Amino acid sequence: MNIGIIGLGLIGGSMAKAIKQNTPYKVFGLDLQDTIIKKAILVGAIDEALTAELLSTCDLLIVALYPQDTIDFVKSHAGMIKKGAMVLDCCGVKQVICEALEPVARENGFIFMGGHPMAGLAHAGFTHAKKALFNNASMILTPVKGTRIEDVQKIKLLCENIGFTNTQISTPEEHDRVIAFTSQLAHVVSNAYIKSPSALEHKGFSAGSYKDLTRVAKLNETMWTELFLDNPEYLAEEIDGIIERLGQYSKAIKEKDADTLSQLLKDGKERKMLIDGEKF
Amino acid sequence: MNIGIIGLGLIGGSMAKAIKQNTPYKVFGLDLQDTIIKKAILVGAIDEALTAELLSTCDLLIVALYPQDTIDFVKSHAGMIKKGAMVLDCCGVKQVICEALEPVARENGFIFMGGHPMAGLAHAGFTHAKKALFNNASMILTPVKGTRIEDVQKIKLLCENIGFTNTQISTPEEHDRVIAFTSQLAHVVSNAYIKSPSALEHKGFSAGSYKDLTRVAKLNETMWTELFLDNPEYLAEEIDGIIERLGQYSKAIKEKDADTLSQLLKDGKERKMLIDGEKF
Repeated sequence: MNIGIIGLGLIGGSMAKAIKQNTPYKVFGLDLQDTIIKKAILVGAIDEALTAELLSTCDLLIVALYPQDTIDFVKSHAGMIKKGAMVLDCCGVKQVICEALEPVARENGFIFMGGHPMAGLAHAGFTHAKKALFNNASMILTPVKGTRIEDVQKIKLLCENIGFTNTQISTPEEHDRVIAFTSQLAHVVSNAYIKSPSALEHKGFSAGSYKDLTRVAKLNETMWTELFLDNPEYLAEEIDGIIERLGQYSKAIKEKDADTLSQLLKDGKERKMLIDGEKF
Repeated sequence: MNIGIIGLGLIGGSMAKAIKQNTPYKVFGLDLQDTIIKKAILVGAIDEALTAELLSTCDLLIVALYPQDTIDFVKSHAGMIKKGAMVLDCCGVKQVICEALEPVARENGFIFMGGHPMAGLAHAGFTHAKKALFNNASMILTPVKGTRIEDVQKIKLLCENIGFTNTQISTPEEHDRVIAFTSQLAHVVSNAYIKSPSALEHKGFSAGSYKDLTRVAKLNETMWTELFLDNPEYLAEEIDGIIERLGQYSKAIKEKDADTLSQLLKDGKERKMLIDGEKF
């Protein structure tokens, strides 16, 4: 099998390394920066540069670009993609991508599958890419309606071969709704948390809870702005939800209402225990 | 030196174990539950039960109770405390405690020092107490004005002997202001985060960021209600601050204002990098 990887950043670069390490497949890579392609060949992450000619030989194309770039690339190369080949994207939002690319795939005789590898690092780029990035991570797949089960199975198997221990099948809508809570809201809250004026003077008082809450504050604002604006309804709903809930705690504290405050905290504790599968 | 420990829960029990392990001092322990005292003697965490008679022989009393219980205990036993002895508390708030107990100490001829061992576990009680609980943790001390430097030094040395790697000297006001941000706000946000309706259906989409954000949601609501209501101004200010900041992200997302959203995220990223001592 020939695999083409478009975008050799943290995700695409790690995909390349993991596939070369764990499978017998040929991997061709494309990147805006020529030096990255050369480096990827040098370290054995790809076999060669992905040319227009090689692109037509690929059975699987993995597009590891930002959302709009992903859409643009697939649209502009749709005519060159082999009939029956599969195109998998790696974006953190799925509705925008799937809605844009499903008809393109149908018209051009290839299969599009939405993918979201739930893995990352604080640092981006091929330099930080590593073959173990996906070890023990989850891959969310959002196959187009009518995708054959064996095609989903093929991608699932590849994911398992390169380290993912969990492959979830979802719809683009469900993905975007849940991801707004599990990932996007976490980044917004963390980013907002660190902006307290008190943050500048906390030295030596730094509890583990503070470290946890602010770990993902250091994000790539260009990528996350695009991801957030591709999922505005679900994310704004999550933000407004936590704003409203936080207001309840603030009110109870200002009114020194111990019963209400205790009940609010107990509700949160029990919710967490329920989700973690603990008794209470 | 004789040390009395009042309250053999997670903190007091761990103090007892760590002191017995790392120092030659005698340790006497008191707990509401007689079985806990017996158990503590059995496992060598204390030498014997802290009787009224022994209390008068203690050079150091460590009170590891909830805030109001701490105040009540010291007040009701003030007359029995040895002149010149030191009393150290372990509460997560300091103004309420120090304001209540400084005059009591002065009137009764002992030294009071506020203490906040920045260590904890999701589980409470002597059963979970361990001698290594304070390893690599910070201890915040808030000595009363006029405390002799050698008395502070004595406590600092004891802290280092039982595992703390960082002892910060602060005022009760500064402690409560900073702790509202580094610890209390983190618990409120985490507790509010987990209550999103989406939390019940996130299975398999569970990113590391979500895990971090909700780790401290599972809290003891009785203890935290008391701690929060002993620090209402600073904490409500922190909650209202993050509510206001979150509103800015929500507004930018709803208005699809990429420039503002990107700037908000960039500001948070740079704040985090500044605090972590990184260049940007």
